[in-house]
Amino acid sequence: MTKQELIDQIKLKKSFLCIGLDTDLTKIPKHLLASEDPVFEFNKAIIEATKDYCVSYKINTAFYEAEGISGWQSMDKTLALIPENILTIADAKRGDIGNTSNMYAKAFFEKMNFDAITLAPYMGNDSLAPFFEYKNKWGIVLALTSNAGSADYEQQMVGNEFLYERVISNTCKLASDEQLMFVVGATKPQDFVTIRKHAPNHFLLVPGVGAQGGSLAEVVKYGKTNDIGLLINASRSVIYVSNGLDFAEAAQAEAKKLSLEMSAYL
Amino acid sequence: MTKQELIDQIKLKKSFLCIGLDTDLTKIPKHLLASEDPVFEFNKAIIEATKDYCVSYKINTAFYEAEGISGWQSMDKTLALIPENILTIADAKRGDIGNTSNMYAKAFFEKMNFDAITLAPYMGNDSLAPFFEYKNKWGIVLALTSNAGSADYEQQMVGNEFLYERVISNTCKLASDEQLMFVVGATKPQDFVTIRKHAPNHFLLVPGVGAQGGSLAEVVKYGKTNDIGLLINASRSVIYVSNGLDFAEAAQAEAKKLSLEMSAYL
Repeated sequence: MTKQELIDQIKLKKSFLCIGLDTDLTKIPKHLLASEDPVFEFNKAIIEATKDYCVSYKINTAFYEAEGISGWQSMDKTLALIPENILTIADAKRGDIGNTSNMYAKAFFEKMNFDAITLAPYMGNDSLAPFFEYKNKWGIVLALTSNAGSADYEQQMVGNEFLYERVISNTCKLASDEQLMFVVGATKPQDFVTIRKHAPNHFLLVPGVGAQGGSLAEVVKYGKTNDIGLLINASRSVIYVSNGLDFAEAAQAEAKKLSLEMSAYL
Repeated sequence: MTKQELIDQIKLKKSFLCIGLDTDLTKIPKHLLASEDPVFEFNKAIIEATKDYCVSYKINTAFYEAEGISGWQSMDKTLALIPENILTIADAKRGDIGNTSNMYAKAFFEKMNFDAITLAPYMGNDSLAPFFEYKNKWGIVLALTSNAGSADYEQQMVGNEFLYERVISNTCKLASDEQLMFVVGATKPQDFVTIRKHAPNHFLLVPGVGAQGGSLAEVVKYGKTNDIGLLINASRSVIYVSNGLDFAEAAQAEAKKLSLEMSAYL
């Protein structure tokens, strides 16, 4: 998916919501557990119910890997189900030496057909470069995350800037804003001012609104660009609103509510 | 596997070799491609031929993920084949917020039964903590890697030390040397002096000897502890010595040569 196609979808749907499919067998409604592939049945219902209110789905690979081979099958089937005009993100946080990153890129961009993958930058630019060799595919690099541990390294000073700033400016040498996004947590919205100095036009994938407590209004205030430039992710706060028979309707209501809130900013 | 069990194996085999199973369909002998599971057949022959000369196998998950579900099946089958007294490492470079890292730990330590997993520290200690909740399982945290990109962040100064030093000392707060190792590349052996200041008794997993050009003698000179404290990884330089019918014997000869070289230091 190109940047323009993503922007067009945002304008069409009046939403910049990304829904995270952190699908956990211990949290989905009990009545689904009798089906052959409960994870897929849950995702299918959630996607059907929410696809008009979001522009992206983010599949958190850990939750699928935890179920072993059947989990990868659920992931494959889920991915195939997502409409083509919705950006698909593998939230996989990969990154390794070049010949290994080549293999990860092959896994997520060829073997599976994700539009985007999240990447961990610790090993430096040559560990990320292979992901940017694919046309119309996206690398979404961890910059400033929403967990407490972001203080350990991300928010440490390197020279006269934070490590996460160095990561952003350095990664921008690898790819343009047509292929590169950053993960920026919503917990301290003022940080978006700093981030926009380094990445004025990039889309930012923003977790931490909802379950982790961040505010949408604040994120938009400090983080938006002319093209909005934000994908706001909500996972647990959308998909686990109800664990009864009405789980899909409840998720739909929450996604609709969020997208309505977003439409005011578009 | 406990630290003492690993040390006992090293003494018994007079080897501290780890063999990396970076098994790539484009590089394995052509005659294997006709079999039902060429990756598994290759690994099986390599393990049979080399298991007396190494104390660990490292499965580079990217190479298996690149083959999709059949790749995960090959990984499962390979893992089941490795003798129990050999340390199994998932070279997966995982790390995410706590509830997601929980899922990765479940994937590699419960669903699969790896002894160890490599971890990417960018998101900080709370992203690594879940992996250390498993008794007799190991987290192997990226510190100083062997690629050029290690200069981008790992070798940047944070306060009065390198980022990789900060990672080592900070991660040591999470777990003892009974559960925690670090990845340290072999490309600049003098760096081991600095690393040993922070991790005097930890095992270090050392890639970069062989295909990437590092020297075993230099690594031992600067990096060894009383218990040796090193796992030297060789992947391509062992498993791809020959791509003919004799590939397993050729790998065995190379593993034997390396282990003989190592025995001199024990």
